[in-house]
Amino acid sequence: MAAVCILDEFEVHKNEEFLKIADELKPELHETVVRPQNMNELAAKQFKRDDQIVLDFGNHQVGYVTLDLSSEGSHQDAPAYIYLRFAERIEELAADPAEYDGWISKSWIQEEHIHVDVLPAKLSLPRRYAFRYLEIKVIDVSMKFSVVINDVYVRAVSAVCQDDISPLKVEDPLLQKVDRVAIRTLQNCMQDVFEDGPKRDRRLWLGDFRLQARANYKTFKNFDLVKRCLYLFGGMTFNEGKISACLFTEPQPEPDDTYLFDFALLYGSALLDYYEETKDEDTLKDLYPVAIRQIEIGLDYLTEDNVIPDRSNEFWCFVDWGEGLNKQAASLAILIYAIRYGIRLAKYMGDTEHIEQLSQKEEELKKSAVDHFWDEKRQLFVSGSERQISWATQVWMILARVFPKEKNRELILRTINVNPRIQMVTPYMYHHYIDALIRSDEKERALNEIRRYWGEMVHDGADTFWEVYNPYNKYESPYGSVMMNSFCHAWSCTPTYFLRKFYEDA
Amino acid sequence: MAAVCILDEFEVHKNEEFLKIADELKPELHETVVRPQNMNELAAKQFKRDDQIVLDFGNHQVGYVTLDLSSEGSHQDAPAYIYLRFAERIEELAADPAEYDGWISKSWIQEEHIHVDVLPAKLSLPRRYAFRYLEIKVIDVSMKFSVVINDVYVRAVSAVCQDDISPLKVEDPLLQKVDRVAIRTLQNCMQDVFEDGPKRDRRLWLGDFRLQARANYKTFKNFDLVKRCLYLFGGMTFNEGKISACLFTEPQPEPDDTYLFDFALLYGSALLDYYEETKDEDTLKDLYPVAIRQIEIGLDYLTEDNVIPDRSNEFWCFVDWGEGLNKQAASLAILIYAIRYGIRLAKYMGDTEHIEQLSQKEEELKKSAVDHFWDEKRQLFVSGSERQISWATQVWMILARVFPKEKNRELILRTINVNPRIQMVTPYMYHHYIDALIRSDEKERALNEIRRYWGEMVHDGADTFWEVYNPYNKYESPYGSVMMNSFCHAWSCTPTYFLRKFYEDA
Repeated sequence: MAAVCILDEFEVHKNEEFLKIADELKPELHETVVRPQNMNELAAKQFKRDDQIVLDFGNHQVGYVTLDLSSEGSHQDAPAYIYLRFAERIEELAADPAEYDGWISKSWIQEEHIHVDVLPAKLSLPRRYAFRYLEIKVIDVSMKFSVVINDVYVRAVSAVCQDDISPLKVEDPLLQKVDRVAIRTLQNCMQDVFEDGPKRDRRLWLGDFRLQARANYKTFKNFDLVKRCLYLFGGMTFNEGKISACLFTEPQPEPDDTYLFDFALLYGSALLDYYEETKDEDTLKDLYPVAIRQIEIGLDYLTEDNVIPDRSNEFWCFVDWGEGLNKQAASLAILIYAIRYGIRLAKYMGDTEHIEQLSQKEEELKKSAVDHFWDEKRQLFVSGSERQISWATQVWMILARVFPKEKNRELILRTINVNPRIQMVTPYMYHHYIDALIRSDEKERALNEIRRYWGEMVHDGADTFWEVYNPYNKYESPYGSVMMNSFCHAWSCTPTYFLRKFYEDA
Repeated sequence: MAAVCILDEFEVHKNEEFLKIADELKPELHETVVRPQNMNELAAKQFKRDDQIVLDFGNHQVGYVTLDLSSEGSHQDAPAYIYLRFAERIEELAADPAEYDGWISKSWIQEEHIHVDVLPAKLSLPRRYAFRYLEIKVIDVSMKFSVVINDVYVRAVSAVCQDDISPLKVEDPLLQKVDRVAIRTLQNCMQDVFEDGPKRDRRLWLGDFRLQARANYKTFKNFDLVKRCLYLFGGMTFNEGKISACLFTEPQPEPDDTYLFDFALLYGSALLDYYEETKDEDTLKDLYPVAIRQIEIGLDYLTEDNVIPDRSNEFWCFVDWGEGLNKQAASLAILIYAIRYGIRLAKYMGDTEHIEQLSQKEEELKKSAVDHFWDEKRQLFVSGSERQISWATQVWMILARVFPKEKNRELILRTINVNPRIQMVTPYMYHHYIDALIRSDEKERALNEIRRYWGEMVHDGADTFWEVYNPYNKYESPYGSVMMNSFCHAWSCTPTYFLRKFYEDA
């Protein structure tokens, strides 16, 4: 399914004051120069037609690459024609870009064809790449000369610096490694804004941002970048005041014409997290109305029966990737979850009217959730007209606290036991699953699941955590090819949040 | 056959004084902005994945292209990935660059793959292209936006301006057209130096230069550019004082390690032409020793029998492209031809010693040419141990004036009549054939041959004249694919020289 949203009527309301605050918080990026591990092999090589090398930069990098090229042999008598391909995982290089025919843009494949008319040349590539591996292939030189690559380096960039983070205080080397990889993931996604993935889409997505901000509070503590993103979202609503699911910052800040029901509702949760970390009253006051408005808009979607209509065949409520997931029940659960955060925000604001109104709605909707979606016989929540049982539905109903804690605990254990056919696919959904385990006092099990899921990615060679990881189908991609998946993806960075909460806050 | 020369021992002698004179004569290029004829069709189009257009710039252009791009639809949410291909002839676009597997560099194919991360964008391509047609294909955008091309133009460049040339005073519209196309060819090859072809090799080749200079004297009369090139060749000799067959000007002037016996010998002819046009005594005095040295080096190759050894299996004496041409007899003829020009130079210099010495040598070698290569029975010259009969051999023996004029005339008519299997392939060789006809008082026939050869290129759609044109095999290429041939090639511009000599000097 091509998951895009295009709104025919799209009227953006910019709050210039908010955007000015966001602009002033634009970070200056840290730069680190990194060279490939196999520089010696490179410098000794003379490249003729079809000669190639794969350089290994040792870890995942995001940045700007420079090549220092010269020629050997006779004077250069033709352009040097060079192909570059950047890959986050070495496996990507096995796929042929020309064969990609999926629904997202081929333009995301990080490849370049470059003619160098005059050697020697210092070739500073203007685009930013996300990669650990760089394949360089000389498509052609001439019979009279060869290309020599004297130097290659990347100016790796990030809004933050990993040196500042102390190692996780835990004995388990796998968890230590998971923490390190998570932090690298977060670091490489922290650029001008919190990007979802530095390879693709390189954009500020609200759902990802909320999780990144949580991981950031436990690690880099870059509060300004969170504040900047909160103001960007709050400063560019559309139509009846909706927050976009994602934002662009180039050539100037603009919202995407994409509404995702769950993402918009989770804005309040992100705002609350920020306020509780910083006690920044001004920001809370500025952005509280935007957060409350998302809940009001969410409530407007309710039917007379107090449920959200099923729009699982549209790109309207994200929840998770994965073919065939019915999202109706989860939509309602996320609305309930958002209301709870709304009440907490209202309490900080002393907004008694909303406290009362939202509290009443919370109870009504919890009851509706049970009435409509609880299958008494199977002791699980169902979703949609075909009464689908999925992991996602159970997890979100637990996070919505539709049941009391003990019953939630039984539910999550039953879900594990039943292992519904409709699996979780993204680390984004796994995050909420871990969260649900913890909120059900299943901390050891949560740790084990982190070991099993993110630890398995580490075993599979992850330097940074991936956008999509289905342990039951490691070649899963929502885009028609794993080559298009992002392998440094923000929503996957949260183990560091959980681990540091367990081992350091305790 | 891969026609390259790589010299193991290559010691360049730079004459800094000469190079300084050359540098000071570097031209400032004229710029003309040209837009495609089908701009309206272009501006109305919205490009999605795989959409393409071929733009027609109306005539052959050499220059720098700018595209003004924007997007339609939702905000750009992926890079735009654009493929550009420049073609001198529309037919080039039918060939697939990926399939080229010949001996010269694929890098000459004028194609670019460009990612545009942020739209709108003014994309000023840094490389220079030679083309009439520009194919633009959008490899991909995304489902949410399309690319719009608001404007495309080329800043066409040349050292000269065609406006200054009055039309040829002749009734025949075909000859008028041949003259115009020849002048366009010359103009587009006149850049920082006289290039052989602005698409490929973009270099100063001595053999091409001599013919360009002749055409230039009848048209643009840019004497400084000729002088610049004479000093560049004269200022960068190698080993025992040889002149390189071609020169590079980037990153700084350097000779190629290529010696072509005939090209080096023809330097004196180019110098004499220049002096007779300009009466520039200083240049003559500076460069006369270089020209004489080429003849001395040529003479050193003579065997005891007073012939040049057969090196037709090497890239050592150009004469013509074309499989299987034996060049031994032509080599001797070109040496004799060069000696005649040397004597004329020596006369201008008052160098009696060389006049005497070279005149004696000229007679010896004419006798040797007849003794070794004249086939009395067939009444044609033969070449090599297999006694090959070719057009090229007869033409050069005529130009060397081995026989008196009337016998030369009989020889050229006999050659036409016999039509040897080893044809002429390049306009470079055809130039010398036309020259041979004229020097045999066959002016009408020369005109008809210009109509037949260059006129046929016009009929075949030439906007500028081609590097290779064999009327008997229109797909002939020395490079393994016509796609690699240059279709604006300096050595092909000489009809304007002949025509303006006939119709205007008379």
